[in-house]
Amino acid sequence: MTTKFLLPESELPTHWYNVVADLPAPPPPPLGPDGKPVGLEALAAIFPPALIEQEVSAERWIAIPEEIREIYRLWRPSPLHRAHRLEQALQTPARIYYKNESVSPAGSHKPNTSIPQAWYNRQAGIRRLTTETGAGQWGCSLALAGQLLGLEVRVYMVRVSYEQKPYRRSLMQTWGAEVFASPTKLTNAGRQVLEKHPDTPGSLGIAISEAVEEAAGRADTNYALGSVLNHVMHHQTIIGQEAKKQMALAGDYPDVVFGCCGGGSNFAGIAFPFYADKAAGKAVRLVAVEPSSCPTLTRGVYAYDYGDATGLTPLLKMHTLGHDFVPPGIHAGGLRYHGAAPLVSQLVDAGLVEALAIPQLETFEAGVLFARTEGIVPAPESTHAIAATIREAKACAKTGRPQVLLVNLSGHGHFDMSSYDRYFAGSLQNYDYPAEAIAESLQHLPKVG
Amino acid sequence: MTTKFLLPESELPTHWYNVVADLPAPPPPPLGPDGKPVGLEALAAIFPPALIEQEVSAERWIAIPEEIREIYRLWRPSPLHRAHRLEQALQTPARIYYKNESVSPAGSHKPNTSIPQAWYNRQAGIRRLTTETGAGQWGCSLALAGQLLGLEVRVYMVRVSYEQKPYRRSLMQTWGAEVFASPTKLTNAGRQVLEKHPDTPGSLGIAISEAVEEAAGRADTNYALGSVLNHVMHHQTIIGQEAKKQMALAGDYPDVVFGCCGGGSNFAGIAFPFYADKAAGKAVRLVAVEPSSCPTLTRGVYAYDYGDATGLTPLLKMHTLGHDFVPPGIHAGGLRYHGAAPLVSQLVDAGLVEALAIPQLETFEAGVLFARTEGIVPAPESTHAIAATIREAKACAKTGRPQVLLVNLSGHGHFDMSSYDRYFAGSLQNYDYPAEAIAESLQHLPKVG
Repeated sequence: MTTKFLLPESELPTHWYNVVADLPAPPPPPLGPDGKPVGLEALAAIFPPALIEQEVSAERWIAIPEEIREIYRLWRPSPLHRAHRLEQALQTPARIYYKNESVSPAGSHKPNTSIPQAWYNRQAGIRRLTTETGAGQWGCSLALAGQLLGLEVRVYMVRVSYEQKPYRRSLMQTWGAEVFASPTKLTNAGRQVLEKHPDTPGSLGIAISEAVEEAAGRADTNYALGSVLNHVMHHQTIIGQEAKKQMALAGDYPDVVFGCCGGGSNFAGIAFPFYADKAAGKAVRLVAVEPSSCPTLTRGVYAYDYGDATGLTPLLKMHTLGHDFVPPGIHAGGLRYHGAAPLVSQLVDAGLVEALAIPQLETFEAGVLFARTEGIVPAPESTHAIAATIREAKACAKTGRPQVLLVNLSGHGHFDMSSYDRYFAGSLQNYDYPAEAIAESLQHLPKVG
Repeated sequence: MTTKFLLPESELPTHWYNVVADLPAPPPPPLGPDGKPVGLEALAAIFPPALIEQEVSAERWIAIPEEIREIYRLWRPSPLHRAHRLEQALQTPARIYYKNESVSPAGSHKPNTSIPQAWYNRQAGIRRLTTETGAGQWGCSLALAGQLLGLEVRVYMVRVSYEQKPYRRSLMQTWGAEVFASPTKLTNAGRQVLEKHPDTPGSLGIAISEAVEEAAGRADTNYALGSVLNHVMHHQTIIGQEAKKQMALAGDYPDVVFGCCGGGSNFAGIAFPFYADKAAGKAVRLVAVEPSSCPTLTRGVYAYDYGDATGLTPLLKMHTLGHDFVPPGIHAGGLRYHGAAPLVSQLVDAGLVEALAIPQLETFEAGVLFARTEGIVPAPESTHAIAATIREAKACAKTGRPQVLLVNLSGHGHFDMSSYDRYFAGSLQNYDYPAEAIAESLQHLPKVG
């Protein structure tokens, strides 16, 4: 009985897949404050030319430079596992597979994009990068990339995560990055928020404002984002490309593909290469799974909004809860984002991708069951996708249908054990965000057109 | 340029290798308090028959039951990596390979033996296991094994590690184990120590006493040990067996093999299968690396001593600093043991294995360099072997000799970030243990024969 499906390094993808080529309609462009499409020069203050080109590209395939592939080979291709023991525990006829992105040095899928982002910035002569991080998965990954490629990295870490996950901070420092709890007094954006809400837990939106503000103000410094933008989605598609080859090795093809969804990069990474098949007529369900406490795709609106909290970014057409929505301090810090990737949002809006929100306690229950059967302790973000997979596998147990389920294990929970501690102590809760609170923040959506 | 050498699951070893078959002389037997070889029935109070049989076996190969191999396949075969980036940083002509045992769910090589130990105990009708743990690598691994195989697990965790590594405790609890800071008031052994030294940081020797005492007193409960004993060494040889095949894939053969050495299982795991070649005439150096603060192999004596602190175990012929030696609270908790595996000790005594002690600061320096080049943050235990490898690679840079170096990365340091924090803060130190202190504890060696 085979448990893991491994690819040799020679099967590492040579190209990133750009889903734009297969969308039913061109993606709505980012808009400036004047409501007109932003010129590329506006992005040049914080991004290098090659990434801007990828951001607006409609080419189906983007070649991966060999030096990036060489770094990918430190841990890639990542394994695909058949979850025999989880299946047994659920007494399901479903065949469950998981793609294991926890094997990267940083413990998640995030280095898939931090490495190329650092590389293209270095090519462009940039010496410093700023970024934000939620739970710290992205900050660690950019710290790693900066270390491997010789760039300085400064990380604005959402305050609630900074306090909950001190060892993610240590990890960033081991890889040589500077880390601050956001909001800080270092930026105008941070100072504005602290004046109004000195006790704010922070949010990804606020931290993005701080990182963008700093990058925009320094010539040697650019900004790197771990999710949301098109080029980030492209970079992550190596996950799904590998998974397709590995599913073929297993002699199976998924009926349903699950990924957790905050900004959207982990979901896009596994799902977009399967979407290419779907666009070509193949039957496959793609499910983006988000927390009930930050229900961007399931209870937000599809509209133009800012990517950050204070309105420094262009307007993006996406599912949003409003750019000043501050989600509760749940433990899946990486999913606490008011918006979602425009590419994912467009597919959800078109009915080609499904969205599902799951409450916090169910996700931890799923994480513990996964740890106790498959061994690996999943990150609280990943447990969302696992919980959705378990729901589906239980449904299969009732109907008797032997569906093939594929889930992206976005990362391990080694730096999230304090969250598991609190779950076991019974001190975690579900947050069903009141409709009025969402309606309130949606009133602040920018007027467009 | 290939970075990783992977084996398919079909290449997972089918047998454990028993080095006893290739030793220059039969191993000196364990002795009872009367100075006579202990009967097997004395071991039956705490070990199942199959493990006792393995403990005294002289058969070269021991078949691995298929159900154990099925669990091994959750993460095995583990990858072998070529450390290209570390080589570049050291400007060395040496070719450095590392076997990556950090990929197990527990993050170290320890599940290689916890799984079979739990399995054989379950076969024998045992329902509970007790054990000790230092840094927590072993405790986590036994917790995992108990969870996967349906046995209750109680862990006595050395107090200094319990306090330094709270998240290893959480991890054990996630896998359903009970964890106590040792010494406890639950056992006579623990109470005795606490009376004399209420502020003791604890030691592996004391924690072993507690776990053995409890297991000996309950019919449904056995004891499991993560190192030292022969059967543990055998189980770990799957590491070296895989590494040999992977070195062949790489078209190389090691001139020197390095493993960190506390009790000895990680060193034995990688080195013994190469020792088999050495016994057959092949030139290969085998280097066991220990901390200067607990210099069992380099400054201890080769003599009969107790395996635990209070004299509950049989007498083992091994390198020892004296069973009541309490090493300082260094951060490589897994290497804080007064003795060493009898099989490793015998080979060191015979001059067939080299031993090397490295001070704490050099090991952390090596760990940080490894993290910053290869990405993976190594456990403080593993950094000892890495530091020795780096010394050798630097020597190669001077001589120009392109030696092939193989090192066992016993585990990752995700639960040891507080130690890295302290290293960066400059609050760690070297401990050069005074000769008088060692002489003092050696005076308490039991008189034999």
